[in-house]
Amino acid sequence: MSAFRFAVDVMPKDGILDPQGRAVEGSLAHLGVRGVTAVRVGRRVELTVEADDDAAARVVVDRLAGTLFANPLIEAWQVERVG
Amino acid sequence: MSAFRFAVDVMPKDGILDPQGRAVEGSLAHLGVRGVTAVRVGRRVELTVEADDDAAARVVVDRLAGTLFANPLIEAWQVERVG
Repeated sequence: MSAFRFAVDVMPKDGILDPQGRAVEGSLAHLGVRGVTAVRVGRRVELTVEADDDAAARVVVDRLAGTLFANPLIEAWQVERVG
Repeated sequence: MSAFRFAVDVMPKDGILDPQGRAVEGSLAHLGVRGVTAVRVGRRVELTVEADDDAAARVVVDRLAGTLFANPLIEAWQVERVG
């Protein structure tokens, strides 16, 4: 068994309303910052998985991403190895 | 002026308590998932910046990251080009 560290980036899907992104854009306007658009706010989850190999670890991460970390109806996610 | 898209990953600094990460670890234990440790939960902000070049765009992103997106006392961030 080895330890594999991953990051899961969870973002609102295209076309899904993103209230946090809209709030940031509103703040930017109030702060006088111009030229910043299309702000989207999501989550990043980093975790270490004990498994026999990278492939087995990815199976665990993919399952967790689609059930615990993200809501597949409205969010998309990407998994990357880190560390 | 060109448009440059960036992602800013904001994570709790090492040693800073991460209640969301602890909560996920607690859920995993209840779900019977073993071998997952060191869960950290942060934010990911994606944004488009209009600027003359990549360097000028990065200056804007770095300033926003350290003032609006992250709390430098307790959070660390990384900027990456996307898209």
